[in-house]
Amino acid sequence: MTDDAASAVLDTARLARTAAADLAPLPRSAKDAALLAMADALEARTAEILDANAVDVADGRAEGLSEAMVDRLSLTAARVSDMADGLRQVATLPDPVGEVIRGYTLPNGLEVRQVRVPLGVIGIIYEARPNVTVDAAGLCVKSGNAVLLRGSSSARHSNEALAAILDEAATGAGLPPHTIQLVPGHTRESVKHLMTARGLVDVLIPRGGAGLIETVVRESTVPVIETGVGNCHVYVDAAHPSVEQITEIVLNSKVQRPSVCNAAETLLVHADAAEAVLPVVLLALKEAGVTVHADQRAAEIASVNGVTSIPVTDDDWGSEYLSLDLAVGVVDSLDDAIAHIRRWSTGHTEAILTESQQAAKTFVSHVDSAAVMVNASTRFTDGGQFGFGAEIGISTQKLHARGPMGLPELTSTKFVVTGEGHVRG
Amino acid sequence: MTDDAASAVLDTARLARTAAADLAPLPRSAKDAALLAMADALEARTAEILDANAVDVADGRAEGLSEAMVDRLSLTAARVSDMADGLRQVATLPDPVGEVIRGYTLPNGLEVRQVRVPLGVIGIIYEARPNVTVDAAGLCVKSGNAVLLRGSSSARHSNEALAAILDEAATGAGLPPHTIQLVPGHTRESVKHLMTARGLVDVLIPRGGAGLIETVVRESTVPVIETGVGNCHVYVDAAHPSVEQITEIVLNSKVQRPSVCNAAETLLVHADAAEAVLPVVLLALKEAGVTVHADQRAAEIASVNGVTSIPVTDDDWGSEYLSLDLAVGVVDSLDDAIAHIRRWSTGHTEAILTESQQAAKTFVSHVDSAAVMVNASTRFTDGGQFGFGAEIGISTQKLHARGPMGLPELTSTKFVVTGEGHVRG
Repeated sequence: MTDDAASAVLDTARLARTAAADLAPLPRSAKDAALLAMADALEARTAEILDANAVDVADGRAEGLSEAMVDRLSLTAARVSDMADGLRQVATLPDPVGEVIRGYTLPNGLEVRQVRVPLGVIGIIYEARPNVTVDAAGLCVKSGNAVLLRGSSSARHSNEALAAILDEAATGAGLPPHTIQLVPGHTRESVKHLMTARGLVDVLIPRGGAGLIETVVRESTVPVIETGVGNCHVYVDAAHPSVEQITEIVLNSKVQRPSVCNAAETLLVHADAAEAVLPVVLLALKEAGVTVHADQRAAEIASVNGVTSIPVTDDDWGSEYLSLDLAVGVVDSLDDAIAHIRRWSTGHTEAILTESQQAAKTFVSHVDSAAVMVNASTRFTDGGQFGFGAEIGISTQKLHARGPMGLPELTSTKFVVTGEGHVRG
Repeated sequence: MTDDAASAVLDTARLARTAAADLAPLPRSAKDAALLAMADALEARTAEILDANAVDVADGRAEGLSEAMVDRLSLTAARVSDMADGLRQVATLPDPVGEVIRGYTLPNGLEVRQVRVPLGVIGIIYEARPNVTVDAAGLCVKSGNAVLLRGSSSARHSNEALAAILDEAATGAGLPPHTIQLVPGHTRESVKHLMTARGLVDVLIPRGGAGLIETVVRESTVPVIETGVGNCHVYVDAAHPSVEQITEIVLNSKVQRPSVCNAAETLLVHADAAEAVLPVVLLALKEAGVTVHADQRAAEIASVNGVTSIPVTDDDWGSEYLSLDLAVGVVDSLDDAIAHIRRWSTGHTEAILTESQQAAKTFVSHVDSAAVMVNASTRFTDGGQFGFGAEIGISTQKLHARGPMGLPELTSTKFVVTGEGHVRG
């Protein structure tokens, strides 16, 4: 049984490898034509997609999925159209493949060019939302990669319909067959086989909760790009901007969309700023429905304004709440704030709010995270906000890509060296 | 015992992590001063280094190390001076840290800059030669990284002396203590603890034979950059250059330094070129001491010129000989050559010798290797030859770095985003 499951996954990966070899040299025009055909096919076959999705939704309800999860899982004609438009949008983006990163002629006349090439076969492991199936397929096609999709088993029928429609449309438009495939099997075993398909799969990108990402990182022998766990901090410096501006940034960072990785989870305030800042900011947060987990100093200052709080624990400092909760602490110095962040951060995004050029410089150079904001909301760490046009995830590791990943981050490079009979002396 | 070994390695890694945090923001001047102090210290304390090395050499002889291995292990005053000069050379190279890779202002006025930052803590696992201790330490210091060195146990006394002298000199010049450390312990266990020091070590770079690299890749939970295994191919196209030029390039690729990863291991010749090319090239190889492992067609053609050969096997096609052996085959087309290479190559370096622009283009776009040479020797895939000034290894993987790795490849990046109270709408 296990052997069958393993060989099914490996067979799929081998088909992807062959597809990748044929896909890599294709010009942009071929890939864009396929993306447009994929978009049209989604819209033309909406009924089929919605039928498959209805099965997943019914199964989910029967298994007692929460209404929030059912909503994430549910597709409508409008949502299918949005996915199709996403593919059309990717078609308008520049092709990263072929870009010359470096190019020069050596003293001996050898011409050296470092050129972007596709990674090859990309495996994406993700949870719930079926739209990831379409987004990931589109970005991989555009960057010349074959893709192995391993979605949540709760979305299996939706994903099967979507992947089949996309691959059929891509093939019809001239791309190699098996450019877009689902990983067969719905057990944890099939994920394991994907994670050990070294030599067949070039990179795995897990998208989802911390547990999923940790499992993939620990067990995969295929190289992994970690994404998206964000315990993000906002630090208010002694030389702080206006309390109004601080309130606006903290609220935006925490409240605008608390369930995403670039939402703030901890607020640190310099002791010299605490009495001016905390009562106003915490009251505003409270009014926005935020539960405050405060250290003793913050709690005392906030209570002046009638804001109650829960005592903060190490679990809080280490939490990515993804909810309307915020850990709040008072620190005695910029250095203490940096030390706190270095200890507890997941390396996603941290912000400093300061009028001091020196404090901003120190914070930026000492905080070891993918993105550091100066006087701006943590919510800006996002491929769309950064102007990338598309995003496959936000890398929180240091190798290959760090921060929002767009199309260039789905490529590798190759050195092309051209001589006229050159030999090494 | 194992627990003690584990905690010794983890304690060392924690010290490195602290050093890395203090090292990252230091300016180029501080790092260059340290490199020069390290170079001076090596020369001033040559006697100490040679004494330690003599113990390793005596131990090696006692354990029956081959004379070639003893030579690789042996240091002399001249070799110590060369290592010192290597550090001085690294001091002259530009500092990659702080380089702005991308920078732009968004329509909303947010300033986005993507800046090079150190990776943090780099672990290097390597074999025999003690000069790697010095090279790796120098490159890591220059790129602002703390380094954990895990050399061969056969060079333990030499490495201990070198690392102690280097770290003492670096600290004396103002770098954080523990910037340069050896991994404690000489058993395989200590390597294992290094490979699983996730969160403390940012990347592992194994330098050595295929076995070492395979072990690290399979067992490490710390991200790894694979280096250096090269089963490199030279393909002679139907539209080939002069037989003299082919002979010169093939000889250079195979014979100039057969023990290194960018030496050629396989020669493929198009059937239309075989009769003109093979007798001359194989005779020249034979005269240079090369053992030819030929397929039937190549063997027959070569025998015309009195060149004898051994029948080639799949083991040969898959071998990185690192010796004066060459696998030779005749192929019916450029596509067959590409298919052969895709099957057997380790993705290091492949060369095409052709007069045809179309053949060169097809070869370059279809061969999936770190470096592709057109009418040049495979031996050019090298950081020094590419003008990088220094090289930590040659990556044969696709993530992060591919091909020769210089100082920029020892860095990550960070997004620095500066606003004036910006919040997301």
